[in-house]
Amino acid sequence: MRSPIEGYLRELHADLSRLRGGVPYQGIPAMAGVNPDEFAIALATVDGHVYQVGDTQSEFSIQSISKPFSYGLALDDLGAGPVDEKIDVEPSGDAFNEISLARDTGRPANAMINAGAIAAVSLIPEAPGATRFERILERFSLCAGRQLAVSEEIYHSEAQTGHRNRALAYLLRSFGIIETDPTRALEDYFRACSVMVTTPDLAMMAATLANAGSHPVTGVQAMGLDAVQRVLSVMTTCGMYDDAGAWMSTVGLPAKSGVGGGLIAVLPGQLGLAVYSPPLDAHGSSVRGVAACERMSRDMGLHFVRAARIGRSTVRGSYDVRAVPSAVRHSQAEEELLDAQGYRARIVELTGDLLFAGTESMVRAITELDPEVELVLLDVRRVDETDAVALAMMCELRDQLAEEGRVLGLIDEAGATSSHVCAEGDPLFTTRTEAVEWAEEQLLARYGGEHLSATEVDIPDFDVLAPLSTADIAVLEELMVPLQVQDGIFLRKTGENFGGVYFILSGKVTTSTSEGGHLVRHAMLGPGMTFGEIALGSGGDQVTQVTARGPVRLKLLGAQAIEQLEEQRPELALRLWKAVARDAYTLVEQNLREAAVRIGD
Amino acid sequence: MRSPIEGYLRELHADLSRLRGGVPYQGIPAMAGVNPDEFAIALATVDGHVYQVGDTQSEFSIQSISKPFSYGLALDDLGAGPVDEKIDVEPSGDAFNEISLARDTGRPANAMINAGAIAAVSLIPEAPGATRFERILERFSLCAGRQLAVSEEIYHSEAQTGHRNRALAYLLRSFGIIETDPTRALEDYFRACSVMVTTPDLAMMAATLANAGSHPVTGVQAMGLDAVQRVLSVMTTCGMYDDAGAWMSTVGLPAKSGVGGGLIAVLPGQLGLAVYSPPLDAHGSSVRGVAACERMSRDMGLHFVRAARIGRSTVRGSYDVRAVPSAVRHSQAEEELLDAQGYRARIVELTGDLLFAGTESMVRAITELDPEVELVLLDVRRVDETDAVALAMMCELRDQLAEEGRVLGLIDEAGATSSHVCAEGDPLFTTRTEAVEWAEEQLLARYGGEHLSATEVDIPDFDVLAPLSTADIAVLEELMVPLQVQDGIFLRKTGENFGGVYFILSGKVTTSTSEGGHLVRHAMLGPGMTFGEIALGSGGDQVTQVTARGPVRLKLLGAQAIEQLEEQRPELALRLWKAVARDAYTLVEQNLREAAVRIGD
Repeated sequence: MRSPIEGYLRELHADLSRLRGGVPYQGIPAMAGVNPDEFAIALATVDGHVYQVGDTQSEFSIQSISKPFSYGLALDDLGAGPVDEKIDVEPSGDAFNEISLARDTGRPANAMINAGAIAAVSLIPEAPGATRFERILERFSLCAGRQLAVSEEIYHSEAQTGHRNRALAYLLRSFGIIETDPTRALEDYFRACSVMVTTPDLAMMAATLANAGSHPVTGVQAMGLDAVQRVLSVMTTCGMYDDAGAWMSTVGLPAKSGVGGGLIAVLPGQLGLAVYSPPLDAHGSSVRGVAACERMSRDMGLHFVRAARIGRSTVRGSYDVRAVPSAVRHSQAEEELLDAQGYRARIVELTGDLLFAGTESMVRAITELDPEVELVLLDVRRVDETDAVALAMMCELRDQLAEEGRVLGLIDEAGATSSHVCAEGDPLFTTRTEAVEWAEEQLLARYGGEHLSATEVDIPDFDVLAPLSTADIAVLEELMVPLQVQDGIFLRKTGENFGGVYFILSGKVTTSTSEGGHLVRHAMLGPGMTFGEIALGSGGDQVTQVTARGPVRLKLLGAQAIEQLEEQRPELALRLWKAVARDAYTLVEQNLREAAVRIGD
Repeated sequence: MRSPIEGYLRELHADLSRLRGGVPYQGIPAMAGVNPDEFAIALATVDGHVYQVGDTQSEFSIQSISKPFSYGLALDDLGAGPVDEKIDVEPSGDAFNEISLARDTGRPANAMINAGAIAAVSLIPEAPGATRFERILERFSLCAGRQLAVSEEIYHSEAQTGHRNRALAYLLRSFGIIETDPTRALEDYFRACSVMVTTPDLAMMAATLANAGSHPVTGVQAMGLDAVQRVLSVMTTCGMYDDAGAWMSTVGLPAKSGVGGGLIAVLPGQLGLAVYSPPLDAHGSSVRGVAACERMSRDMGLHFVRAARIGRSTVRGSYDVRAVPSAVRHSQAEEELLDAQGYRARIVELTGDLLFAGTESMVRAITELDPEVELVLLDVRRVDETDAVALAMMCELRDQLAEEGRVLGLIDEAGATSSHVCAEGDPLFTTRTEAVEWAEEQLLARYGGEHLSATEVDIPDFDVLAPLSTADIAVLEELMVPLQVQDGIFLRKTGENFGGVYFILSGKVTTSTSEGGHLVRHAMLGPGMTFGEIALGSGGDQVTQVTARGPVRLKLLGAQAIEQLEEQRPELALRLWKAVARDAYTLVEQNLREAAVRIGD
């Protein structure tokens, strides 16, 4: 199915194809031959999808769009301090080829004008086995996600005609801004401007900046985040030369144009845009490029003010464990205790990005909890991004809670958060089920007496048999076989026939099913509970696997014993089956109540 | 519990209290008496929470921080075109009190320098019953969320000493930029600068800009979104005068300072910051204010590049209806058909904000669906914000799907999205349950033959009785009472004792429980199914309500009839109860399988 976004871009392209005006750059003879009608638009998202329309195969020289990427390399190599000493970050309010050097120091106003860009190139060191320009080209290629190359023809043409840039380079050398051979710096600058790109290449380079320096497809960190921050800041105030204010007001995106006819714009965190159309306006920017960016910003709401998502609370839900009881079956007394004390254990589910606004809402949700909530289970499984501030705040919260005798636990599947926040022994879970089971145990241990944790239940005390008389129960117990198994033993396997009803006297078992190849645990059963009946419901086949957790003592009322009972004592068998049916409907009812909690999903 | 964010601000405040340097503004005698040690920091989130530390009760004059708000009022009143004719949007690279008028037209470079701000005030019209200044003060008050007032002392002092501003006003008048009495405009400008605010007031005014013009607490739209966009754009390039580039690189937030010692910064969509400390640096900005913003931006990751949340897919899940089967109990043949054809009905769950990046991922998820998916159910209940582009794209997708004979349905509780996207008769649901029931019906109608929709089932064909012989069933049927009820009749009410087993011969019933005062529907039952047994499981009390949906014909095997059977024909009663137990475990097993789908939650 055709994407409406492609449809939109196609319409925009057709519309703007009618836009005339401007002339291709005349300063470099080798570029005079470009076809002025070529026109391409590309949009790359931070997850690497590229929309493109028009002459997207055409290659053209990157020209000044090289500047942010060379500047970024210098910043990554030297750090901001040494680079700032040589190149300021203030808008010059001048055209791209203005001299704009500080009167006293000769420091160029910023790295987006020629003087600043030449200075930036001069700062980039060689590496063992790689010349400065090879490093520049490698960097550009990493940002584009493919190996780029220089047009030797354009390079030579640039080098032969760049008298003004040559003057700038010598001026920079005279001020000591360039400390090495200005001719070499200039050559590399001309080469950087002569790198050939397509419109989708530029969109991907812009998207790499949008994606915090990491290439959206290859995942390579092509530029450090500090450098990206600086580069996009300077693009914001200086990228469109003397048109910066109007550009920011109408388009509202950090951008950079080149006299080759290319133009990029970046919506941080979201996308990179690129347009190619050679005819230039008075500012030296592509006429259709500017028009396309204005239209896209307006039509798609890309202006930084409009694209700012209103910071929603990252707190997706906050509820106590009673809303999501574990599948551990508890005794009546335990149930009552959990009902009364369950408010003390609370799950706080987070979602989205824990950048400042998200962190703030998490912090607020936790600090405002009732002080009686003593187990705080932070579910971070749906969190996308967590910055250092968020991790520091979580540690702070954990410590503050600990001071008050309260506990912060984490539910964290991936472990990215917990590895920073959890110390050895801190409660850490990969599923909510585990966390709730732990919290229930904690509450039972903290608020329950000894009497709650029945470690042994005798047959007459089983709930399922409650409707039967003592005499009936004695008869049934006579028919039962005692069993004793060790930890990990399978008591029932999937697919087995109905083998009777298993009564757990002591110890615990878990039931699980195999879903899509891996085991899903459903319930933990303990003393006083039974299993095995579920095989009745599936044409006689066991659908769950039952495994001993630790040593377990049981009694089995086997299928043959039941048959025998049905023949010899039908009235008792009737009462047994009625009791089993009643017990089954107790389970159905429990399921119903638990499902009700989830309704709305 | 103390918030770590408050803790952070308190530490920051203590740290920066040691920072000396700068002098309070000396230009206005009435302001000379301020206490240079006063220092406050406030941070307001877009949901209206304010963190504050230091001298947050102190009032001071707003000074140049009035400029963005007066400019915003002029933009709201006149629109951008007429305002742009008089005031440009380009950075001047000059100090706040530089003249910076265009040589030919006299147009001030921007509205953040004095000349531009006086021009902006002059453009604001009076209203019936309200002078220009009353309108300005009302606007400031709406942004702050409380009634603000002017310091007459500061106003008079400003008016007496503002010679340079007076010169600017006459110069603007001479160029025709001010078309009315320049003295009046100047008075209102001085008054606007003399409005008294506290640091939390300023934080709230900044948060109003961050919140797209809507006051975070009162919800009043204090400034239009177009004006907010323009104001924040101009603050970005011109708000910090000749320090704009460095500010953007280190702090990275649109900002405005005032010589009164105040400073605001805005992180669109997230928060407003304000600092108050009178000593000013060479640029006329608060020394501690600048330092505090730099620290907060760095420590809390507020720079626009770092604060940009990487656009995650808004597609929270995409799965076909087989993953979330309805609670409608289907016949074996129907189940098989739904198993085979269920992939044709797909739910796409969205979450977060449908601004550009979110919309793009939604569009991609839908356009890339297998063309055989003919029912697309878009669940927008977790979407926070939906912009016009998203709505337009959804309409486009609906139309494109329709052309291919496919259907777009919406699950939309609030109706905000569906009211734009759904035409009369388009499938629209408020819960997923409803949507899935509809999709299953559609699939059964499209791919099932007549034979599937059994409209009538006789007692011998009931699943629950399958283990019994024909003779047994005939006996049971003898004991049954026929019933016939109309639409809406309650067949079982919550709390009723076990009344027997109801066999549905034709028609449908729904079961529901009351949860927190409102009914939650659990299942729809049809011919061949039974109900009433659940009362067995809850000490004999019915826990669900059962209601006829349309006319229903039933047979009831009453509780008394069952008792009679137990006495007179215990072997048959045994077989009945065994069948009931088996049927109950079939239900338990179904619940287990459905719960497995949800595991991971």
